[in-house]
Amino acid sequence: MTNNGVKKVISSVFHKVASIPDNGKLAAYIPELAKVNPEYFGVYISSVNGFEYGVGDWNQKFSIQSIAKALAVTLAYKALGEQIWQRVGVEPSGTPFNSLVQLESDNGIPRNPFINSGAIVVCDILICNLKNPKKEFLDFVRDIAQNPQLDYCSKIAESEKSVGYLNIGLCNYIKSLGNIKNSPEEVLDFYFNLCSLEMTCRELSHTFLFLANHGSKLFDGKEVLNHSQCKRINALMQTCGFYDESGEFAFKVGLPGKSGVGGGIIAVHPGKYSIAVWSPRLNARGNSYRGVRFLESFTTNTRESIF
Amino acid sequence: MTNNGVKKVISSVFHKVASIPDNGKLAAYIPELAKVNPEYFGVYISSVNGFEYGVGDWNQKFSIQSIAKALAVTLAYKALGEQIWQRVGVEPSGTPFNSLVQLESDNGIPRNPFINSGAIVVCDILICNLKNPKKEFLDFVRDIAQNPQLDYCSKIAESEKSVGYLNIGLCNYIKSLGNIKNSPEEVLDFYFNLCSLEMTCRELSHTFLFLANHGSKLFDGKEVLNHSQCKRINALMQTCGFYDESGEFAFKVGLPGKSGVGGGIIAVHPGKYSIAVWSPRLNARGNSYRGVRFLESFTTNTRESIF
Amino acid sequence: MTNNGVKKVISSVFHKVASIPDNGKLAAYIPELAKVNPEYFGVYISSVNGFEYGVGDWNQKFSIQSIAKALAVTLAYKALGEQIWQRVGVEPSGTPFNSLVQLESDNGIPRNPFINSGAIVVCDILICNLKNPKKEFLDFVRDIAQNPQLDYCSKIAESEKSVGYLNIGLCNYIKSLGNIKNSPEEVLDFYFNLCSLEMTCRELSHTFLFLANHGSKLFDGKEVLNHSQCKRINALMQTCGFYDESGEFAFKVGLPGKSGVGGGIIAVHPGKYSIAVWSPRLNARGNSYRGVRFLESFTTNTRESIF
Amino acid sequence: MTNNGVKKVISSVFHKVASIPDNGKLAAYIPELAKVNPEYFGVYISSVNGFEYGVGDWNQKFSIQSIAKALAVTLAYKALGEQIWQRVGVEPSGTPFNSLVQLESDNGIPRNPFINSGAIVVCDILICNLKNPKKEFLDFVRDIAQNPQLDYCSKIAESEKSVGYLNIGLCNYIKSLGNIKNSPEEVLDFYFNLCSLEMTCRELSHTFLFLANHGSKLFDGKEVLNHSQCKRINALMQTCGFYDESGEFAFKVGLPGKSGVGGGIIAVHPGKYSIAVWSPRLNARGNSYRGVRFLESFTTNTRESIF
Repeated sequence: MTNNGVKKVISSVFHKVASIPDNGKLAAYIPELAKVNPEYFGVYISSVNGFEYGVGDWNQKFSIQSIAKALAVTLAYKALGEQIWQRVGVEPSGTPFNSLVQLESDNGIPRNPFINSGAIVVCDILICNLKNPKKEFLDFVRDIAQNPQLDYCSKIAESEKSVGYLNIGLCNYIKSLGNIKNSPEEVLDFYFNLCSLEMTCRELSHTFLFLANHGSKLFDGKEVLNHSQCKRINALMQTCGFYDESGEFAFKVGLPGKSGVGGGIIAVHPGKYSIAVWSPRLNARGNSYRGVRFLESFTTNTRESIF
Repeated sequence: MTNNGVKKVISSVFHKVASIPDNGKLAAYIPELAKVNPEYFGVYISSVNGFEYGVGDWNQKFSIQSIAKALAVTLAYKALGEQIWQRVGVEPSGTPFNSLVQLESDNGIPRNPFINSGAIVVCDILICNLKNPKKEFLDFVRDIAQNPQLDYCSKIAESEKSVGYLNIGLCNYIKSLGNIKNSPEEVLDFYFNLCSLEMTCRELSHTFLFLANHGSKLFDGKEVLNHSQCKRINALMQTCGFYDESGEFAFKVGLPGKSGVGGGIIAVHPGKYSIAVWSPRLNARGNSYRGVRFLESFTTNTRESIF
Repeated sequence: MTNNGVKKVISSVFHKVASIPDNGKLAAYIPELAKVNPEYFGVYISSVNGFEYGVGDWNQKFSIQSIAKALAVTLAYKALGEQIWQRVGVEPSGTPFNSLVQLESDNGIPRNPFINSGAIVVCDILICNLKNPKKEFLDFVRDIAQNPQLDYCSKIAESEKSVGYLNIGLCNYIKSLGNIKNSPEEVLDFYFNLCSLEMTCRELSHTFLFLANHGSKLFDGKEVLNHSQCKRINALMQTCGFYDESGEFAFKVGLPGKSGVGGGIIAVHPGKYSIAVWSPRLNARGNSYRGVRFLESFTTNTRESIF
Repeated sequence: MTNNGVKKVISSVFHKVASIPDNGKLAAYIPELAKVNPEYFGVYISSVNGFEYGVGDWNQKFSIQSIAKALAVTLAYKALGEQIWQRVGVEPSGTPFNSLVQLESDNGIPRNPFINSGAIVVCDILICNLKNPKKEFLDFVRDIAQNPQLDYCSKIAESEKSVGYLNIGLCNYIKSLGNIKNSPEEVLDFYFNLCSLEMTCRELSHTFLFLANHGSKLFDGKEVLNHSQCKRINALMQTCGFYDESGEFAFKVGLPGKSGVGGGIIAVHPGKYSIAVWSPRLNARGNSYRGVRFLESFTTNTRESIF
């Protein structure tokens, strides 16, 4: 499909989805997120050929939340290689994002790095292997995004910490099972900061473009992950990126991706493009209501899925 | 990669994997399958451009077993459209292929059509909608494979029925939960026949080529599934095709596919090719030991995964 | 409390409970049971001192259903001793009577002999150890009840078999896990007959009097179980006799007992008496609504619980 | 049985069990408990008739640990009555003492007050209803024990807090599900102190004698719980007092009771006596190895069980 064709599809699908009643709900359990204007809706696409296009509120900052988990596992994988899979699995969980059931039967090894327990273990791995994890992680994100302005939002991080009983519970529970090496306080502090990263759709799309480019940054050609590692991160996003809606997202959209409770979604077409969508209201499974609908129509109309 | 390049990779990976000790085990619980020579090993690829190539025992018939579940759900989807998803889900199960746990909490709706419970419900759907389900299903498979010789193996079907306590248990249990409409005997008879289908690697590769061709048969161009439906079946195979090893298969191989306890695996690269591998010994999660290893090396060396 | 005191409490509690709206529901899934007049309500007590007393419909036959499981495990225990606990556990299940979850994690060993799966395994044990299990079991029950007229009801047995998908499922599932030695058909035929036993409240109270008499029949003093075995069967009824309401029954009533979906309950005060209650409508957890309420008031007013 | 008969049984069973190899293991996860001499073994019985008798190390202080949960729920029940059962259940859990699985499916309502999660909720209830919970709870225990010297052990409480990841995890998890009203720190501080109570076998036996005396203190006749409430606490100890060994303890011993990881067990024969046993090594399910064996032989030989 031509660039103009893609623009037309994006624009028409965007307006169609914007006109449908939004049945989603804001993530009310995090005080700061509950204050966001729920009407925001933005889309931004960046292709490996240099094509870029945005509609709606693509230039508005938002909290990327769990989308940052994909960046954390990328940095851990880059730093340690295959041994990280001894501490976190690569299988879909079949259960909601905050489930403790499988930790209990799997001796503290989370099913994958995209459920909360898995991301918490990834944070612990990074703390073990970086001198200044919060700074080095931020440097890493700024580098792949070619954007030194990207930053954590301390207000969001504090807001989450103040009500983060579930994640405190998860982290201490995994610690009791032996799969957290550092103090729960330190791990959680890193985790809550990670989730507080803020980006616009454009920035988010740029940040993830290396996964569409077989692991290398487009702007300087330098390798973030090698071809095989990049394949694996994309595969993980495909099978596990949307909690217990991962199967349905693959089924309807057909692209690897990752969502966050801030209403953001990043999706990647390996070899082609990355596309960021943001709309704050969430469906029953915690993924952006409009975001999922937009991407479903986008890949159906462009026939641009990987399947 | 050129056709010759693919041939070279297939040939060299085949010989490398053949030379590694095979740590798998025959599916001993089905008497007839336990009699198969465990040393068989064959591969066959068919591309949408007409390229074909096989190595090893690609011309030897074997029992495709659960691979037939992908054909059954295709026929059901073709016949009834989206309403089949009211009776069977599209999410990975996170549990072994024969798990009953989720049926209990999900009121008899199996997580996906590729675990045993899901395939049994698909059989029930087909019986409700076809006059002569065993004959019509076989006609369908013969048509997409362009091969009127394909057939069930009654010896295998009988062998499975004689020890099929688990599937009898599953079917009656789902019946008690209201998601089987016909008699368990009739449903199970169809199910055991379905799983007894026999093919060579070449035939298997031909049969699934329509899924690499966006839903249409290559030889006559006729549509089996439309573009969107084909995407969805491929996505389902990606997220659910390998039981509780689905995530790892996506991670290592990066192609949608389906395995069977006979040791066969079919994998599909949408828009490009279908590839069948067969080696009878199974790994701990019930998938062909050599088959998975072959495909992992194949996609790593050719860089021909979807991710 | 004097015999007259007990009579007064029974009579007054009976009329009080009879006057309260019955919020229970008939066990509608078994066609024959659904035909029973739901207004029946009877009570009968027999003490080891020879005191007997009944009110309401105590002389009306009803289907004792799962109450028979306590008789089956008694006969198996008597015949084989402690080795039966290798095939069925003695722990409360924490889940509804028909749960399959724990079978899966416990390799086919049911948690206790009073959930369906456990009773099915007990039937299998009896078939392995008796020449003519249906006849010998009936002879055993007639002997401890001193009543040669007691019998199975073939109409009920057939009715249950016709809709017994769940039990067929359970039995085949346990067979697949290796804890059923005979054919599922034979085991289920015995099981459905067992559950079809019919008794009046008076007969039921007489049948279980040996458990109040430390294991020996009152009328001839002969030992059915020894003192320690009797203690164990009573303890099992206390912790497991009421499915996932066992804790609440112990809490409110404070007597070991066993219920059936026919609306019958037998409760035993070791060293003192056995009391049978029957009222067909069941509460949400499958135990007689009026039966539980009667026994709760009875032990509270007489202070005659074991705790 | 005469008092002399009971003395003889206790003495002979004590020496028999003491001579058998102790296959249990110290609760190594709490540093301070791991330092205890594992050879300690003591027994003390107190009857409602004033009979008392002890053998072995009955006058040695030990950490009663989870046995204190029975005192905490007694005080909460006394203070609030039946409404406490809206926040904690009365059913056996069917799972180990620290399981999180059921919390997840039961929305934060622990199955019973004797698993850790349940005791943590009871602590929260007490904090909501007492001005100075730590002091008032201690006053309550000193009163029923008629012993103003009883006290917490701050060394043990600190030791548990330092490694209490599991309980921190549980408390925060329940908080996230809405069933903890105070701050997790405050609840856990109370919980760890509660578990640090120290008593000798004699003191433990005296403390629980009111449960053998239908709810009233023996020494002054004052009611702690009324007859019906006392029945209920005893019933709860019977069905839930020994984690996932509760069924087996009822089966083998036949008395309501409660165990702690310090190796103590209290058992109560309603209307007759309370008996405390202490031996630090634990069996696989976390209950005193020698303690369970002693009580089994004691009730078998005296025929003094409730069943």
